[in-house]
Amino acid sequence: MAKVGVADTAFARYDMGKAAIEELKRGASVRIERYTVPGVKDLPVASKKLIEEMGCDIVIALGMPGPEEIDKQCAHEASLGIIHAQLLTNKHIIEVFVHEDEAADDKELVKLADARTREHARNVLKLLFNPKALEKEAGTGQRQGFADAGPARI
Amino acid sequence: MAKVGVADTAFARYDMGKAAIEELKRGASVRIERYTVPGVKDLPVASKKLIEEMGCDIVIALGMPGPEEIDKQCAHEASLGIIHAQLLTNKHIIEVFVHEDEAADDKELVKLADARTREHARNVLKLLFNPKALEKEAGTGQRQGFADAGPARI
Amino acid sequence: MAKVGVADTAFARYDMGKAAIEELKRGASVRIERYTVPGVKDLPVASKKLIEEMGCDIVIALGMPGPEEIDKQCAHEASLGIIHAQLLTNKHIIEVFVHEDEAADDKELVKLADARTREHARNVLKLLFNPKALEKEAGTGQRQGFADAGPARI
Amino acid sequence: MAKVGVADTAFARYDMGKAAIEELKRGASVRIERYTVPGVKDLPVASKKLIEEMGCDIVIALGMPGPEEIDKQCAHEASLGIIHAQLLTNKHIIEVFVHEDEAADDKELVKLADARTREHARNVLKLLFNPKALEKEAGTGQRQGFADAGPARI
Amino acid sequence: MAKVGVADTAFARYDMGKAAIEELKRGASVRIERYTVPGVKDLPVASKKLIEEMGCDIVIALGMPGPEEIDKQCAHEASLGIIHAQLLTNKHIIEVFVHEDEAADDKELVKLADARTREHARNVLKLLFNPKALEKEAGTGQRQGFADAGPARI
Repeated sequence: MAKVGVADTAFARYDMGKAAIEELKRGASVRIERYTVPGVKDLPVASKKLIEEMGCDIVIALGMPGPEEIDKQCAHEASLGIIHAQLLTNKHIIEVFVHEDEAADDKELVKLADARTREHARNVLKLLFNPKALEKEAGTGQRQGFADAGPARI
Repeated sequence: MAKVGVADTAFARYDMGKAAIEELKRGASVRIERYTVPGVKDLPVASKKLIEEMGCDIVIALGMPGPEEIDKQCAHEASLGIIHAQLLTNKHIIEVFVHEDEAADDKELVKLADARTREHARNVLKLLFNPKALEKEAGTGQRQGFADAGPARI
Repeated sequence: MAKVGVADTAFARYDMGKAAIEELKRGASVRIERYTVPGVKDLPVASKKLIEEMGCDIVIALGMPGPEEIDKQCAHEASLGIIHAQLLTNKHIIEVFVHEDEAADDKELVKLADARTREHARNVLKLLFNPKALEKEAGTGQRQGFADAGPARI
Repeated sequence: MAKVGVADTAFARYDMGKAAIEELKRGASVRIERYTVPGVKDLPVASKKLIEEMGCDIVIALGMPGPEEIDKQCAHEASLGIIHAQLLTNKHIIEVFVHEDEAADDKELVKLADARTREHARNVLKLLFNPKALEKEAGTGQRQGFADAGPARI
Repeated sequence: MAKVGVADTAFARYDMGKAAIEELKRGASVRIERYTVPGVKDLPVASKKLIEEMGCDIVIALGMPGPEEIDKQCAHEASLGIIHAQLLTNKHIIEVFVHEDEAADDKELVKLADARTREHARNVLKLLFNPKALEKEAGTGQRQGFADAGPARI
């Protein structure tokens, strides 16, 4: 049975890991391994360990960078590390970052984090079990957490 | 027969993958493997998997980053990953990114994305089958999607 | 017995290494290897040597970047190197950077550096001995050195 | 006989590859392999292929980034890739980038691109055949394409 | 006998390599290998070659980036490459960069470059022969070329 790694952080202000696990279980029968780390910069190696040491076929890496300049930089560093980890393992690590300042207040933040996490959890399942579904969405302006942009209107 | 990987995204607002495949088929007899991922940051590993796991000789990686600052950063991270993937495989991955804000409206966006994709698809074929054609274009100010800048006029 | 590497710098204006060692010893029976280098850009290879040459299971990398633009850039480069070192070793290197301009004066700087170091030292012990404790903190808005942000209030 | 790789682009608005080859031939008896790619981001892997697949001992990588912000970013990404390619091969890849906006008009651009390319072609030969000549220039404020800055005057 | 690599550039406007060699010889009996390259972006591979091909145990990499924005970017790229080279070799490469605009005039530039180079040459010797000396300096606000910041005053 396929195994999905869920890497998340104690820094985030919403339990994205729980939302991801719920959505993954709702969508398919998969084994799940969860790995919580302090912050987003710890996600790259956690994701790589999920793949190499815990046998995951794919990982969803969840983080919620803060609103300050330094938080943006940490997220950038983490993203580069997550891409690097994928290149070293030949496995997808789907990054789900919700920046605190994307939302006007805590209520909106929770709604956004929950929706984006779940949409990407479904992307994880498509990559694992149904790549043709993703191909059908090619060029259709999919967005996660907000309304889809949709295809260009001509 | 040579095999070309076409990596594209569900995030893009135009089906660049379809345009690339059409243009590749028009120009040569090649096998084509398509791989659609959620967004540009998923392209580096998808391209590497196309090369290493699906036997592609070259890849064209297609993306359409959004207009926000964070989209620019994602594109930057994806570009670094695509260069890295090339260095790990010794194969070309021709990146075709069309930034949404390069175009004034959706109509122009589609025109630009289509033209740039097709011009780069032809570059892919030159790299595969006719490197001397590229050498003849050396220093001639080629651009993809817009009019060529042309060689410096002296 | 688990072995923890403590990498710190002569550039820092507070002895973060000493604080880390105290806190690590207070929390668990671990062997500790300390490695002091000139500045933050020397931390990535020092951390990797602690892991690969001195047998550490995890490293805490402590630095205090100065307030200038060039200091920020050095910290960014060091952070990328620390992430890279983790990917090459599959071990955690918990980065603890305190930017001099996060504090209004020296007194606050010391307080912040000490608190952040000790909180991350406890994170190191959790990663080593009690990953379930971190999982319980998932999504709870943990911060190190300042008050926790806490979970989003809805 | 030593072999020099010349990697250049169709994007450039001056035939830097031709200038490099002329200068290399003028200065020494070397075998030359030329490899033209679409743009600067294709130079890292082209340079690595010149070294690993075509047996070059050193490469000169020639590019002319455009004047826009996105062009600067592409050049930055290419530069990082070129440094990376060197670290993976233990061979020098001498980067010669001429930014279009370094010159006031096309005439100046050609002059600059030609001069910088040729000066760096001579650096390539020094690295190959006469490292002591470079050592004599240590700390003398050498510049390529513009007048030398010269050593600090005290 | 330990061997120290000295990598420097023709771009610099002061002979930092000579200063480093003097200081290294004054402080210890070490073998020295010098390697001069055109500019800072050539330092990462030069340093790696000093370690892997010329048997150096440690390297001091000396550069003097110019005052323009593009010079800053080159220095940033070089720094990332130097960190990467260390991770690939598990050896220290002590980077000594003096930015031309750190000094008000040439006289100050020379003084700064000389002082910073020599202080870091002594750091090289400490890393090689006397790591305990560096540990004693941990958290004491050491600076190279300027007066030490000193430990935070509380």
